[in-house]
Amino acid sequence: MENRQWLINDRPTGRPLKDTDFKLVDGEARAPEAGEVLVRTLYLGFDPAQKGWMENIGGYVAPTEIGEVMRGSGIGEVVESKSSAFKAGDKVSGMLRWQEYATLPAAELQKLEDDELLTANLGAMGTTGMTAYFGLLKHGRPKPGDTVVVSGAAGATGSMVGQIAKIAGCKVIGIAGGDAKCAWLIDELGYDAAIDYKNENDLRGKLRALAPRGVDVIYDNVGGRILNDMLSCLAMHGRVVICGGISRYELGKMPAGPENYFNLIFMRGTMEGFIVLDYIPEYPVARARMRQWIREGRIKFKEDIQNGLENAPRTLMRLFQGENFGKQMLKL
Amino acid sequence: MENRQWLINDRPTGRPLKDTDFKLVDGEARAPEAGEVLVRTLYLGFDPAQKGWMENIGGYVAPTEIGEVMRGSGIGEVVESKSSAFKAGDKVSGMLRWQEYATLPAAELQKLEDDELLTANLGAMGTTGMTAYFGLLKHGRPKPGDTVVVSGAAGATGSMVGQIAKIAGCKVIGIAGGDAKCAWLIDELGYDAAIDYKNENDLRGKLRALAPRGVDVIYDNVGGRILNDMLSCLAMHGRVVICGGISRYELGKMPAGPENYFNLIFMRGTMEGFIVLDYIPEYPVARARMRQWIREGRIKFKEDIQNGLENAPRTLMRLFQGENFGKQMLKL
Repeated sequence: MENRQWLINDRPTGRPLKDTDFKLVDGEARAPEAGEVLVRTLYLGFDPAQKGWMENIGGYVAPTEIGEVMRGSGIGEVVESKSSAFKAGDKVSGMLRWQEYATLPAAELQKLEDDELLTANLGAMGTTGMTAYFGLLKHGRPKPGDTVVVSGAAGATGSMVGQIAKIAGCKVIGIAGGDAKCAWLIDELGYDAAIDYKNENDLRGKLRALAPRGVDVIYDNVGGRILNDMLSCLAMHGRVVICGGISRYELGKMPAGPENYFNLIFMRGTMEGFIVLDYIPEYPVARARMRQWIREGRIKFKEDIQNGLENAPRTLMRLFQGENFGKQMLKL
Repeated sequence: MENRQWLINDRPTGRPLKDTDFKLVDGEARAPEAGEVLVRTLYLGFDPAQKGWMENIGGYVAPTEIGEVMRGSGIGEVVESKSSAFKAGDKVSGMLRWQEYATLPAAELQKLEDDELLTANLGAMGTTGMTAYFGLLKHGRPKPGDTVVVSGAAGATGSMVGQIAKIAGCKVIGIAGGDAKCAWLIDELGYDAAIDYKNENDLRGKLRALAPRGVDVIYDNVGGRILNDMLSCLAMHGRVVICGGISRYELGKMPAGPENYFNLIFMRGTMEGFIVLDYIPEYPVARARMRQWIREGRIKFKEDIQNGLENAPRTLMRLFQGENFGKQMLKL
C-alpha cells in the first residue's frame, strides 16, 4: 500500500530548521504481522523536542538516523489488526511518525475514546498535558496558597501548568509574549496575573511587585534571562521545575546558565529536572483527571490544526517562529 | 575591663578585602547582667561567609553595620557567669566576635567538653563540619556504592564531605588545587581519586574517566567552571548540593551560572541549596557522631592556627588567597 513519508534528511544542529532537513518520499506500508497493528494517521502532534531528537540532543530517546521516517506522535485509526487488543476502526495514539500509515506492535499503541476530545490526546491529555501535570505536581509540589510563576505560560505546556496550579489552590502568574496571550491567560484561563515580557523592561521588579513574598514554585519552559529573573524572586524553600527551554533548540547549544542559581542556597531551594516518559505508568490516572477537569470547564485549551502531510515540516517550524497559539497539530 | 575589638570599617563589596576594612579599637567589656555570661576569647574561627556578611550578601543573618564589632564564631572560657547554665572556667563556643571578651546571653553559648578536641568545635565539629554533614546527608542523600565528587575537596568543609561520604560507603573523587592537597586527600583521607584542577586541562574528561557511569552526588563548594564540568558528568537521578562558592565572595557578584544545569533535565537530577543554621536543632546528634568518627580515626582534619588578635584581618584574608591548609583559626 502506498505510504507517503517524511524522512530525516539532515541534522539542524546549531541552526534553525530548513526545508531540506526533510525529504518526502513515496514509501510502502508494511502489512502487520502477528501482534502488530496497521494504523492510518489522522493527526500528528508537534513539539520543540522533535528538533532535539533530530540533533540527537538529550539521549533519553534512541538516537535518530538520517533517512529514518521523522519521529512524531499522532492519532490514528486502526485499518488492520493482528492483535486481540485492537480491531479495525479503533482510535489509537502512539509514535506514528510523519507518514500516512504506521505498522506498530500493539504494545506501543494506546486505545483512545472516540469522542469530542480525540485531538486533546495529543495536547491536554497527551505528552504535553502529562508534562505539565507531573512536572508541576511531582517536582513543583504546590500547596494551596503558594504563588506559582510559569514562563512560556501561553504555550501548550505552560497553559496547562497554570490551570492545574489554580486547581491546586495557588496564585498563578504567567509570563508570555504579547498582549493577546496575556489577555487570554487572565480572561480565559483564570491566571491571577500575566507579564508580557516583550513589553516589560523590568521583569524582575514586576514579578517582585506581583509576588512580594516571593514565588514558591517556578515552572520554567524557557531558560535564559527569564529563568534568571524568576530565580531572583524565589521564596523560602521554593521549588524550581525546569522543563526544556525552546531557546535551546534554536541556539543549538545550552543557553547561558542562570547566575541566580545561587539563590537556591539563600532560599533553601531545589531545582529539579525530569523526563515525562518516566511517569508513563501513572499516565492513566492523570489522563482521567485531565479529562474530568476539561469536562468541568476547569481546564481549557487551544489547538492550532494545520492541514496536509506535505505541510509537516512547515508546521514544525511554526513552533520556533512563535506562530502557533495553542497545541500545534496537523490533520492528514 | 579593657577589651580590644576589631570593628567593621568598610564594605568590601566587589573587591578583595583590605586592611582598612577593619579598625582595631580599645573597647570595654560589659559586665554580665542576669542571664548573661562574660567570656574570654581563646580561639576565633574563620569562614569565607564572613566577607559576605560584611557585604550584607545573603540575608540569612541580620545585616551588618559599619562600626559594629566584626562577627565571627569562637571558643572561649567563662570568666563570670550570671546564669545557672555556666560557671567560671567552662569552655564555650558562640558568636564571640573579633574581641578579647564577649558578654552574651547564656542561651547563645554552647558548653564544650574541655578535651583534646576543643578546637575541633570550630572545625570538624563546628559549623564547618555541620555544613558537610547536613549538606551531604540531607541534600546529597548518598547511598552505598554511589560516586560522590567534591569540589574544594581539601577545604575545611570539602575534606569533611569526602570522609563522611566514605563512611557512607561511597566512592569519592576530590577536586582540589595542587599536588600536596591531592596527595593528602588520597593518602591521608582515603579518597579514591583526586583531580588537581590547576594541572588538568580536561577536567570533564578526567572526571568522566574516573566515573564512567557518572557521578551520583556533586557537592560543590566552588561554583563557576568547576561546577559546570561536574554537572556534565551527572548520573541518572543525581543530586547536586550547592554550598557557597568562595569565588563569589571575591567577585562581589554572582558567578556565571552553570550552563549544564540543563543536564538536570536529561538526568532527572536535583540541585539543592541549604543554610546549615536550619539544622541547629539536629547539631547535637551530628556532633556526637563526628566526635566518635574522629576518635575512631575515620575522620581526620587539619587546623591552621595563627596567633594574636591583631592578626585577625590578615587571617581572614588567608582564606581568599588559598594560603590556609586546614580549618583557619586564630589563637588569642
